[in-house]
Amino acid sequence: MHAIGVDIGGTKIAAGVVDDEGRILAQTRRHTEPDDAASIDAAIADVYAELSADHRIGAIGLAAAGFVAADRSGVLFAPNIAWRDYPLRDRVASLIEDKVEIVVENDANAAGWAEFRFGAARDVEDMLTLTIGTGLGGAIVSHGQLVRGFAGVAAEVGHMRVVPGGHYCGCGHEGCWEQYASGSALVRDAQAAAVAHPDRAGRILELAGGDAEKIVGPYVTQAAQEGDELAIALLADLGRWIGEGAASVAALLDPAMVVVGGGVAAAGDLLLVPARKGFADQLSARGHRPEASIVVASMGNDAGIVGAADLARL
Amino acid sequence: MHAIGVDIGGTKIAAGVVDDEGRILAQTRRHTEPDDAASIDAAIADVYAELSADHRIGAIGLAAAGFVAADRSGVLFAPNIAWRDYPLRDRVASLIEDKVEIVVENDANAAGWAEFRFGAARDVEDMLTLTIGTGLGGAIVSHGQLVRGFAGVAAEVGHMRVVPGGHYCGCGHEGCWEQYASGSALVRDAQAAAVAHPDRAGRILELAGGDAEKIVGPYVTQAAQEGDELAIALLADLGRWIGEGAASVAALLDPAMVVVGGGVAAAGDLLLVPARKGFADQLSARGHRPEASIVVASMGNDAGIVGAADLARL
Amino acid sequence: MHAIGVDIGGTKIAAGVVDDEGRILAQTRRHTEPDDAASIDAAIADVYAELSADHRIGAIGLAAAGFVAADRSGVLFAPNIAWRDYPLRDRVASLIEDKVEIVVENDANAAGWAEFRFGAARDVEDMLTLTIGTGLGGAIVSHGQLVRGFAGVAAEVGHMRVVPGGHYCGCGHEGCWEQYASGSALVRDAQAAAVAHPDRAGRILELAGGDAEKIVGPYVTQAAQEGDELAIALLADLGRWIGEGAASVAALLDPAMVVVGGGVAAAGDLLLVPARKGFADQLSARGHRPEASIVVASMGNDAGIVGAADLARL
Amino acid sequence: MHAIGVDIGGTKIAAGVVDDEGRILAQTRRHTEPDDAASIDAAIADVYAELSADHRIGAIGLAAAGFVAADRSGVLFAPNIAWRDYPLRDRVASLIEDKVEIVVENDANAAGWAEFRFGAARDVEDMLTLTIGTGLGGAIVSHGQLVRGFAGVAAEVGHMRVVPGGHYCGCGHEGCWEQYASGSALVRDAQAAAVAHPDRAGRILELAGGDAEKIVGPYVTQAAQEGDELAIALLADLGRWIGEGAASVAALLDPAMVVVGGGVAAAGDLLLVPARKGFADQLSARGHRPEASIVVASMGNDAGIVGAADLARL
Repeated sequence: MHAIGVDIGGTKIAAGVVDDEGRILAQTRRHTEPDDAASIDAAIADVYAELSADHRIGAIGLAAAGFVAADRSGVLFAPNIAWRDYPLRDRVASLIEDKVEIVVENDANAAGWAEFRFGAARDVEDMLTLTIGTGLGGAIVSHGQLVRGFAGVAAEVGHMRVVPGGHYCGCGHEGCWEQYASGSALVRDAQAAAVAHPDRAGRILELAGGDAEKIVGPYVTQAAQEGDELAIALLADLGRWIGEGAASVAALLDPAMVVVGGGVAAAGDLLLVPARKGFADQLSARGHRPEASIVVASMGNDAGIVGAADLARL
Repeated sequence: MHAIGVDIGGTKIAAGVVDDEGRILAQTRRHTEPDDAASIDAAIADVYAELSADHRIGAIGLAAAGFVAADRSGVLFAPNIAWRDYPLRDRVASLIEDKVEIVVENDANAAGWAEFRFGAARDVEDMLTLTIGTGLGGAIVSHGQLVRGFAGVAAEVGHMRVVPGGHYCGCGHEGCWEQYASGSALVRDAQAAAVAHPDRAGRILELAGGDAEKIVGPYVTQAAQEGDELAIALLADLGRWIGEGAASVAALLDPAMVVVGGGVAAAGDLLLVPARKGFADQLSARGHRPEASIVVASMGNDAGIVGAADLARL
Repeated sequence: MHAIGVDIGGTKIAAGVVDDEGRILAQTRRHTEPDDAASIDAAIADVYAELSADHRIGAIGLAAAGFVAADRSGVLFAPNIAWRDYPLRDRVASLIEDKVEIVVENDANAAGWAEFRFGAARDVEDMLTLTIGTGLGGAIVSHGQLVRGFAGVAAEVGHMRVVPGGHYCGCGHEGCWEQYASGSALVRDAQAAAVAHPDRAGRILELAGGDAEKIVGPYVTQAAQEGDELAIALLADLGRWIGEGAASVAALLDPAMVVVGGGVAAAGDLLLVPARKGFADQLSARGHRPEASIVVASMGNDAGIVGAADLARL
Repeated sequence: MHAIGVDIGGTKIAAGVVDDEGRILAQTRRHTEPDDAASIDAAIADVYAELSADHRIGAIGLAAAGFVAADRSGVLFAPNIAWRDYPLRDRVASLIEDKVEIVVENDANAAGWAEFRFGAARDVEDMLTLTIGTGLGGAIVSHGQLVRGFAGVAAEVGHMRVVPGGHYCGCGHEGCWEQYASGSALVRDAQAAAVAHPDRAGRILELAGGDAEKIVGPYVTQAAQEGDELAIALLADLGRWIGEGAASVAALLDPAMVVVGGGVAAAGDLLLVPARKGFADQLSARGHRPEASIVVASMGNDAGIVGAADLARL
């Protein structure tokens, strides 16, 4: 059965027709207005109309960046879109004439599910996916089942506390994992290093035009790839926090694999090697158990589309 | 179908015949020698012989304090019993003439499963059980399934790291949750308080005969129940760590309920009220989601027997 | 001998004629431009001209918010004024015709010295003053001598690390004491509480016109004085960090008194009582040593003027 | 003037005649009984009798491992000797017929003073000495004066808190610097590593005869000097904590030099290089201030004798 997956970002939606093997047969996108929820509903109906013209569609999966209701009918809360207890499924359904199953999924869950079904984790039954962009999202699969939790808000991995009294997080708490293992953390630490160790930050500052405020993650990655010592250390620190946090998750869930996706994953081994070391250093009962592998995600930017479509079919 | 559950401790085993409703129909126990694995095998066969004389038994569940193999056939490693990659299922089977299904389960998993099926958590589908004795064990149920992990060693909740650079743990790492939320932690903190604040530790020291080395958890609980200020503060601190750690677990798993069992739970509200406060203070996205309740376990000391028996039937 | 003390802020200078008993006999002030160092020199010369018309002046003490050179001739670095290796003494001297001793002092050192000579700490020989405004400054007196350090930059107490991996500090490091014991920390924590616990933050938000971004320290103090529970807890947390950090300082310096000044001190016992408890809870070898008292500063906003003048006379 | 310095350990005392240049002209020692304070008094009188036979002695300095009274007349409390508010000066004086000045000093203060007057720090006015043996002691000199504090118990540097909620310390608190920067910490971490990473601990375990309980600091140092990777990492971690803690002290005291003495200092650059890096990484306002050097102590095991004698003369 073919399904449509829709990845709903703040300012655009990307949609695709996905077959049973996770292949995207056709794709389209629309610009949207994050403050206007109805415009998003309409855009979804519109991409459905376009894509269903040439494909027989059995289900629509909507990947949303927010807390999704346990019955997958809508969004409880979204930080960047004007959704508050929003019945997304029914609003979209009212704009579509065909009878088609519509389900809402958390976007990180959808992306992780794509890795589990068709990507890096397709051969395991228990996995953790970390999607590391500006923030830190995640998806958990246990014994082949997506872990949604009782209210649908499981896998908010970025808000596991890793340092009591640690960095302030936008969620209102201190020391969340996201404050140590995300692109924002990398930028903050690079900017801090430019203040505390200007003698070592030359290359990173140069890429930022001499202005610490303009440092972004890709500059750090580029400098590291060129061999810059500070940039390598910053990525190693980020990797260490990924690995050490994953070891805490492994104490709870014992995954066979940790998949690292999102923009930060572009740093490759500069990130993964320290992550594996941090994981091994902190893994409980090491030597008495098999160990999870830590690998880069393989589904790319379309993971959300593929995962949402596949979950809608289940 | 009736099943036997066997709870295997270091120096004794307790066994019972359990019916489909989780009731124990008959019970027995034996003393064992933790350094002599064969003596434990024989004792299990012996209790089977005794209990199966009057009951028709379909399965045997063995609750073991250690890392259980993913196929539930034996124990990878046990800290207090001479089991190293020990094929417990087959050793016991070789001593029993009847054809009966035998499965090995982790003891904290078994106890938690009993709470899930017949106890405090019988009405929810997603839960976390914390068994807080000398150490901190746990069981996780997600969407009605026991989370075992890929190697069978999930729910080692006590080794989630909560303080980087924190208290040394017997596992070789620092800052494990068990070092902050366990009976051992309570005793250590009470002894430390007796050194740092002798003026405040009078009642606890009195119960311990004036010797800080002889402080045990029940003295702290008793003093707290009498209104002793230091004892109340010590239990509140323990409770806070339970709640704050549970909030990190909730960020990952979103349980409907956290069940607190084990000897420490005897402190009741002196522990639970601070635990609920710590949980609420640290729960991510509070206000945008339903919240887990934190309750005391209801199955008592037989939870391991009941849970092991029930899991053996599945 | 009479001396002039000048307290140099970012946008204004306040000056006074100070007698041997620490009394201010006359006072004046000027607006200045922080980006124009020469305008500050001129303003100082101008207040000297005004004040010396009616008083015979033996010395001028300049209290500067920055790192002061060991020979007290200038400022190595100031975060908020355009001083970089700036020879403040000689620049001011070149604008004054009289031969008069001019010395530069760190502003927190000057304020602390005033407390030591004429204020709350006038009866002790060893003290720590904490000046808690937006940031956290300090002054240390050991055996009656101001501790300046080898390079003149001692008593930067705000940058003692209290939490490894803790809150990012503008200095480029993590976990500085200033990030936990300052007005900025109070505001940050109040804003975070408004996000994490909106149900408890009602009164503070009301004072801020409903806008968390507009929360300032005095609103928290006012709400606490009215009995608001969250505000009381926020001040207690701030007080605890003051006390616990002071206990670490006491392990090094064993002061007889800790004087708490700056705007935050207006909260009085709401701050001091938790500070004393935090100090007592963390003080090493308590019971085997006399304990420092923790008191509010008594010299008010003129402490910088008085202390700078007095230090210039020495 | 010649003075006698006596270094009083738990089970022996070492004494010497010290001239104005810090040279030891004659030396002797006695065995003592830590539980019998009077036997220590007698032994001190005895070494005085022996040494004063050939030398004219003007003063006696007694270096004691404990809290020394502010008037240097006795010991408030000693962890390992039966001294509680013990008037050591007068007890010794009553056993000596000559009129000779007797003063009691803290042993780490005495050792640090020797470094300041005659050793590694003889050219600076502001210094911190760290004496790192089983525990972590210290001495602070500010502007050429020994910092004793108001009660005589300053420079208990080992009990500055560096990790909230960190390792339990024998003083009854958590996270004291001594728990991270001492020989005991090194041994604890080596033993923990042998549990958590047995694959990496081969050489250290070999030196300890295969028994983790028998690991001592010198085995780690030896293995590191042979190139063992784990041992090098353990010393680097210890060095890092020395340096990072010293950076916090430097925020308060701005010393020109940090002198590292005690048994652990035998590791030399394996310890010092990471210590310097940790210091530089954490030093506040680096680049805007001169930096303290970190060097090895030069006075050896006789530092306590020399320093106590010299302080007695002042």
